[in-house]
Amino acid sequence: MNNIDREKAAQLLVTPTDLADLSKADARSVVSFMKFERVKAGAIFIEEGEVTHTDFMVLILEGDVSVESEAASADGGIVMSNIGPGSLIGEMGLLDGAPRSASCTAMTNLDVAVLSREAVLELIKDNPAVAARLMLAISKRLADRLREANHNIKLLGGFNILLQQELDVLQGSAE
Amino acid sequence: MNNIDREKAAQLLVTPTDLADLSKADARSVVSFMKFERVKAGAIFIEEGEVTHTDFMVLILEGDVSVESEAASADGGIVMSNIGPGSLIGEMGLLDGAPRSASCTAMTNLDVAVLSREAVLELIKDNPAVAARLMLAISKRLADRLREANHNIKLLGGFNILLQQELDVLQGSAE
Repeated sequence: MNNIDREKAAQLLVTPTDLADLSKADARSVVSFMKFERVKAGAIFIEEGEVTHTDFMVLILEGDVSVESEAASADGGIVMSNIGPGSLIGEMGLLDGAPRSASCTAMTNLDVAVLSREAVLELIKDNPAVAARLMLAISKRLADRLREANHNIKLLGGFNILLQQELDVLQGSAE
Repeated sequence: MNNIDREKAAQLLVTPTDLADLSKADARSVVSFMKFERVKAGAIFIEEGEVTHTDFMVLILEGDVSVESEAASADGGIVMSNIGPGSLIGEMGLLDGAPRSASCTAMTNLDVAVLSREAVLELIKDNPAVAARLMLAISKRLADRLREANHNIKLLGGFNILLQQELDVLQGSAE
């Protein structure tokens, strides 16, 4: 792992879409606890429902990833999104090691930086202030996603009501 | 604030429903950064949509609270739940100071312990390791809620499909 990659990882860690509240110096400390890995194009490196070895998060440094989730789909199909450099994946697993909620496939060869739960616990010991700010940043990100999910529940619920009303009218006229 | 209340607050902070991963010693440190307050029965002490002074979370020590949310309701009505001692409210506000997503009304006189964002930043300075573990615990709690919300999106989506199918049948037979 050379310094250029480390610096890039630190830069990507503080992009607006991810952990914007982390300072650059904090990000460098976090990066020093990350492992750098290559993923071959086509590899499914995180699998939905996976229950073991789920306690890590991944920062995409280079390349494109397709994220697919059956469980998060509102229409019984598959939710898909494509993400690239600077995206963070799997922070819920990092926190609690619970089963993965989506699958991630490398669409190209990838360079990634991996932060394991073990490394976070090390970070808490070695540099607790940075660890606290990292956790604060991850929490805020989760809070954002939770607000968005609650908004979607509201929208879907509203749509359910409309469908139900339409159904009531049709059933009424059929009687 | 006497020692009995502090000890009770520390105990409640680590109940299974809240921040179970915090050690008792951690909880005592966190509690030393909390302010103890009384809320009169009938008072709405957190208001949905509130945009200022939202950067704190509240631990209920004594009494009952009714939580109501219009925004989180899937049926256009109001989601209500009652919570009591040991419950934690408003941790999303603590993290990002964003508008409140629910209203909280004191159903009885309450004793509460309040942790402000300012206090968390102090805690990060004074005792960063405890702050990191507190943030880790709050993050896990948010991750749980996010998983639950995603599950509800899936359920509501499935229900939408059923309604839509029923509608299609009725509309087909009406033609």
